[in-house]
Amino acid sequence: MLSSTSPADRSGLRRANLALLVRTVREHGRVSRAQLAVHSGLSKATVSSLVTELAQRGLVRSAGTTAGGQGRPGELVELRPAAASGIGLDVHVEHVSATAVDLTGDVLHTERVPLDVASLGPERALDELAAVADRVLAAVEARGGWVSGATVAVPGLVDTGTGIVRTAPRLRWREVTVLDGLAARTGLPLEFFGIDNDANLAATAEIDAGPANSPQDFVHLTGDHGVGGGLVCGGVLVRGALGHAGEVGHMSLDPLGRRCSCGRRGCWETRVGLGALLHACSTPDDPVRDPALHPDERMAIVRARAEAGDRRTLDALHQIGVALGSGIAVLVNLLNPAVVVLGGYFAALPEWLVDPIRTEVAAGVLADGAGGATVVASRLGFRASSIGGAVHALSRVLDDPTVVPIEDNEEAPA
Amino acid sequence: MLSSTSPADRSGLRRANLALLVRTVREHGRVSRAQLAVHSGLSKATVSSLVTELAQRGLVRSAGTTAGGQGRPGELVELRPAAASGIGLDVHVEHVSATAVDLTGDVLHTERVPLDVASLGPERALDELAAVADRVLAAVEARGGWVSGATVAVPGLVDTGTGIVRTAPRLRWREVTVLDGLAARTGLPLEFFGIDNDANLAATAEIDAGPANSPQDFVHLTGDHGVGGGLVCGGVLVRGALGHAGEVGHMSLDPLGRRCSCGRRGCWETRVGLGALLHACSTPDDPVRDPALHPDERMAIVRARAEAGDRRTLDALHQIGVALGSGIAVLVNLLNPAVVVLGGYFAALPEWLVDPIRTEVAAGVLADGAGGATVVASRLGFRASSIGGAVHALSRVLDDPTVVPIEDNEEAPA
Repeated sequence: MLSSTSPADRSGLRRANLALLVRTVREHGRVSRAQLAVHSGLSKATVSSLVTELAQRGLVRSAGTTAGGQGRPGELVELRPAAASGIGLDVHVEHVSATAVDLTGDVLHTERVPLDVASLGPERALDELAAVADRVLAAVEARGGWVSGATVAVPGLVDTGTGIVRTAPRLRWREVTVLDGLAARTGLPLEFFGIDNDANLAATAEIDAGPANSPQDFVHLTGDHGVGGGLVCGGVLVRGALGHAGEVGHMSLDPLGRRCSCGRRGCWETRVGLGALLHACSTPDDPVRDPALHPDERMAIVRARAEAGDRRTLDALHQIGVALGSGIAVLVNLLNPAVVVLGGYFAALPEWLVDPIRTEVAAGVLADGAGGATVVASRLGFRASSIGGAVHALSRVLDDPTVVPIEDNEEAPA
Repeated sequence: MLSSTSPADRSGLRRANLALLVRTVREHGRVSRAQLAVHSGLSKATVSSLVTELAQRGLVRSAGTTAGGQGRPGELVELRPAAASGIGLDVHVEHVSATAVDLTGDVLHTERVPLDVASLGPERALDELAAVADRVLAAVEARGGWVSGATVAVPGLVDTGTGIVRTAPRLRWREVTVLDGLAARTGLPLEFFGIDNDANLAATAEIDAGPANSPQDFVHLTGDHGVGGGLVCGGVLVRGALGHAGEVGHMSLDPLGRRCSCGRRGCWETRVGLGALLHACSTPDDPVRDPALHPDERMAIVRARAEAGDRRTLDALHQIGVALGSGIAVLVNLLNPAVVVLGGYFAALPEWLVDPIRTEVAAGVLADGAGGATVVASRLGFRASSIGGAVHALSRVLDDPTVVPIEDNEEAPA
């Protein structure tokens, strides 16, 4: 409780203040030292010293001066986007992918390899994932970029500490040592890699992108074959005692419902997952079911049919919307979020899903007006988890800018 | 971020340190200044100065000296229980009650008035609640105690800021201005009163009492006609955007289920509330249904029948346990709590409920071993919400010991 200023404390304080400034510049874009002092609560002298160190580490650069006004013009600083990048790796039932994101959040590279992960088995899938990670890393480095790490998104229960996927029913993975496997295959140090549940990382991406004015309480739903929930309460991601929170897709809402990939009956994702949509809107030989298509292409087909008034597609979307609404009502009764963010395929089809969702939620929630909850489509869509993985990997730099090596600070060629 | 030591900051720091010491003494019981310094991280000189002020305010008193050892014996301090008390007020569909709790958490007085709150209407119910609050307050003061406030527990959606109950279906209350009503009736200042949802206050009481080694992630279920959830994630009570989180009783888990007091169908509490138990285990003229009986007396009847092997009672309890388990599985999939605490009537009957709950939870949760969640009976039972209200009222003193008037510090007669 009392102040104590040992050298260790002082260097910890300086690191924390460097992190505060990097995040402030990241949030506000081009900003003067005087503005940084206001936003951070630090003195101008401290800000100057910190900005100098950030520039030495190549994290910020000068960006002209403030226009006119009274006193002398202030020098503006901005992030040097290429100073650090993070890679998000995505393991999906139909593909593996890697996405590199720079310090400002812009996507630099992305690569996707269609793959039947469940049939292939975890070892072959990790081979492909390591290869795609290597290629995206090489592409960033070829442009002079420095990558702080890579975080894997997995649709299942993950032990983030050991890097082991406990169970991922749709991948048919159990007890898969993902991070050790990636380190061995790439030759990169184990610490380079991180891992988390895909819905948690999607929520991380939403927090970073600021969904609907960054509410403190929101739920992000991944919309894919499986459905996961990133639950954010009071600004904090709910992880639970062992990190297994957010398994919304396996809420059993109907004792007589369909059999789920997890072996249980009536799980919510059997009614609202991508499989349920495809089953309801198409026949088995319909090209929309081709897993080699990019998810966005499949959704473009569904959208086109809905826009053309195709009755089967519209009925299917209505049915999905109603089922989504009844499960969202449970989440809203429990968590009273300000916003429910529809991710994945849901985000591609809001015109047809949001109305039935709203009707069901209004009917199913005890609080009037659904407790103030609004339902919005994610701007990140299918990319949310992989972008969240990249943001997670970048957080090492954002939390401690001194991890960026001081010698790597030259401006990269454009 | 930087240190700043204006007089206002220093007095804020001193208040925070006084609060830290009161909570430390409260947790550890009789404790020496040296031990307080260790537990709090404050210097011995600071602890001495703070303990002197706490003694002047009558919050602590000396309690002998430490035994033997090498150096000179240390003086022990302990809380002066009567220095401050809080009152918990409970509005229940079958009664109103008030419970006074002293600084150490011991119950000083409790009074319960059986009442058909839903039929009586809110104005008459508030008359009774104000009267019982007055009587318990007078009883504490007659013993020389000082009461820091009174907090009302209501089974419904509460706006804690304005003191308005938005909706409490089982009470048939909508938009009831509870705190203004109590202040007007008692003549006490509005600030004397607080209000919250009953499940939130029950969880507050559990945190205070330390359920099963105080896990950071647990769920408390109130078990009464209605069923509420106090959801604690990462040590923090989940309130949601408008404070309406935790309405677990109104999760719709069965689209074809029974009609609920809220007007919806299939709400979980229609299957696990006290009404469902009484319906399943007794006929309408059975004395166990008499609402004038204390809830503990009714549960004693059910226990006696179960212990005697009464088939109807045992079947009813099994049925409730199975239904409890299927809803708890949803909560565990979502929140991954370390502990699910069964409150209210559930806590009186764990021998018959816990086994079917465990079976259902093991079957319904994606994570192996129910994600580590254990199911335990609350030690507080039906009293959890009112004790939580008293703890909430006491938190004014625990958060800022300087609210206790310095003149009121004489030892009360025993």
